[in-house]
Amino acid sequence: MLRSLFEAALAAALPDGKFAANLPDCPKGRTIVLGAGKASARMAQAFEAAWPHPCEGVVVTRYGHSAPTQRIEVVEASHPVPDQAGMDAAERILELASDAGNDDLVVCLISGGASALLSLPAEGITLADKQSITRALLKSGAPIHEMNQVRKSLSRIKGGRLALAAAPARVVTYVISDVPGDNPASIGSGPSIPEPQDPDEVLAILGRYGIEISSSLKGVILENCSATRQVAASDVRVLATPMMALKAAGSKARELGLDPLILGDAIEGEAREVAKVLAGIARSVSVYNMPAIKPCVLLSGGETTVTVRGNGRGGRNAEFLLALHLALSDLPNVAAIACDTDGIDGIEDNAGAWFGHGSPAAVPALDASAYLANNDAYGYFSRLGQLVMTGPTLTNVNDFRAILIR
Amino acid sequence: MLRSLFEAALAAALPDGKFAANLPDCPKGRTIVLGAGKASARMAQAFEAAWPHPCEGVVVTRYGHSAPTQRIEVVEASHPVPDQAGMDAAERILELASDAGNDDLVVCLISGGASALLSLPAEGITLADKQSITRALLKSGAPIHEMNQVRKSLSRIKGGRLALAAAPARVVTYVISDVPGDNPASIGSGPSIPEPQDPDEVLAILGRYGIEISSSLKGVILENCSATRQVAASDVRVLATPMMALKAAGSKARELGLDPLILGDAIEGEAREVAKVLAGIARSVSVYNMPAIKPCVLLSGGETTVTVRGNGRGGRNAEFLLALHLALSDLPNVAAIACDTDGIDGIEDNAGAWFGHGSPAAVPALDASAYLANNDAYGYFSRLGQLVMTGPTLTNVNDFRAILIR
Repeated sequence: MLRSLFEAALAAALPDGKFAANLPDCPKGRTIVLGAGKASARMAQAFEAAWPHPCEGVVVTRYGHSAPTQRIEVVEASHPVPDQAGMDAAERILELASDAGNDDLVVCLISGGASALLSLPAEGITLADKQSITRALLKSGAPIHEMNQVRKSLSRIKGGRLALAAAPARVVTYVISDVPGDNPASIGSGPSIPEPQDPDEVLAILGRYGIEISSSLKGVILENCSATRQVAASDVRVLATPMMALKAAGSKARELGLDPLILGDAIEGEAREVAKVLAGIARSVSVYNMPAIKPCVLLSGGETTVTVRGNGRGGRNAEFLLALHLALSDLPNVAAIACDTDGIDGIEDNAGAWFGHGSPAAVPALDASAYLANNDAYGYFSRLGQLVMTGPTLTNVNDFRAILIR
Repeated sequence: MLRSLFEAALAAALPDGKFAANLPDCPKGRTIVLGAGKASARMAQAFEAAWPHPCEGVVVTRYGHSAPTQRIEVVEASHPVPDQAGMDAAERILELASDAGNDDLVVCLISGGASALLSLPAEGITLADKQSITRALLKSGAPIHEMNQVRKSLSRIKGGRLALAAAPARVVTYVISDVPGDNPASIGSGPSIPEPQDPDEVLAILGRYGIEISSSLKGVILENCSATRQVAASDVRVLATPMMALKAAGSKARELGLDPLILGDAIEGEAREVAKVLAGIARSVSVYNMPAIKPCVLLSGGETTVTVRGNGRGGRNAEFLLALHLALSDLPNVAAIACDTDGIDGIEDNAGAWFGHGSPAAVPALDASAYLANNDAYGYFSRLGQLVMTGPTLTNVNDFRAILIR
């Protein structure tokens, strides 16, 4: 049941068949397709299938997230820590945009993950600078919107700079959102969505997490942000969002006789603490039939964070689920699944994990608390045989959580 | 509006008028009233008003939480760290129970806070022993139910030992619950709720966390637990619970034209992380009308925790609210209140705090993040004039949170 809810969410998150009703007019000149993100290969494939005219271009996706295309080149690069392949692709994509003329149409295919994949330091910043700041931010537990603000200020392509390069060509952006509220400027750091950037805010964020930078780096940030003062209107078309995926899972739940309660697409916070809160809501449902009536399922999206203290393995979804399992260990009528919709929970090979009635009891006396203390949720669910393995799903609408209460 | 929701919750949490429909038969002998907790004085007052026969007795409450009574003596003592006044009161209460005869009725009035207020080491254990074991357990990271199991095994009064002392007198227990699920054995460590305690389990817990104790202390634990083998049925009558208070606030909300959604009485976790999760749900309501339709109010109870890192002031409710304020600062249509229903948020003089549209903007540019980083939510809301001050409310159904979305 849980797996079928997740599959329904995934199906709603794919771009397949969603371009046809949403196409711009054919340009006089070329159609240049540029894109980045974990869904960009599948988006390129779906765009080609829908676009009745010639096109060319390059998209960059994460290693292993390719899909076969006819005319648009798919490049693979590293995520979440950028590498040279991503930089080379970003440089090519920026060049193709700059080459676009007045009669050309630039189609941007943007999805979550584009931030790391379209990595191109602003002039005066080395890749090493960028990588060390990114690593420090990832470790700091900073929320994703602050991380992205910093990334934009260090980039030659993010924050609308790709669209600025494409001018005067017409730019149409298709997005698959992995952020609550689906603000296009936040999806993949909005390379094709021009917006003004405040350098003081960026420096404040770095200060807050104790990340020190040189004064020359400060100068680069100031200059790079000043270029964003002019703001153009954007033509953005949304193909899939976390809320669409949650609603699809909700419809599937209803088919299965479960009352769905969608808690939102914006559930954030330290994974193990988020688990305590959702456990409290599940407990209330179990005991009082509030805020939903059993049998029901609590659905939520958003992106939790993990402050790593131990030496174990596992992404934020497995960690969330292990903490939830612990908090609800006295309630036999609860089952749950938590997965990253891109199919990769953090840097492991699993999408997430599950627990419930059907859980095999073959591994006695696994000390769940000890596994959690060691950030080893992967190890825990691996020993139980309760990892969810999908491989790359070729889309990304962020985390998916379903808690089923009978 | 928020304040009136909180007042409705408080009114439902008071014992006033709730004894009359719930009284036992008049005994042939004496009626002895014994009690402990933050609500015990008000409970004694309300019992006296409802009981049409003579009665006598002693209850112990927190300093400042007294209420005037006619016949039942009210003693004040320290909470959450026990003091000599609490120990003396516990000794007197245990003596009065032991004196009760076959024809007597012992009425126990138990509410949250009784654990600390009724502190009395088992014979052969010094206060120093108890304190050092408690400290070691606190450091060990042992879960609260294991800590309480050990505490009960070291106590001369907790875990039903007060009721055992009262035998053969009839014992009737009235409770005001401050714990999710309202298990009477968990409210104030259940002094009048006999339950079997397994000394081997207690020793296993101490062993698990490497806490060594002398063989004489082992003997005391064995003997103190063996007395609990016989388990009598308990006559427990529930006067007020967190869920009753939330439902009362829900009814009030409906009167005010707001759709209430009760998220439960068991919301736990680090206050600032809990705030992020509830902010995410509020955001979803604001953007998508899910999981509730505007105008509405999200109600919840339970007990958050605060890991203190800064030097500021403020209890868990103010800290929760400050983090919520920060997380929702971009949404002008949200207002919220968070208070401890006992009227004392931690060790301060406020019950909690609020924010919303009506907030005075007289203090410009308070850096909410900096206040939160310093655990100074009291300072923040004090400067804004948005503390909620009630004084001791003479009851306790734990935390109350209401988030209003228009």
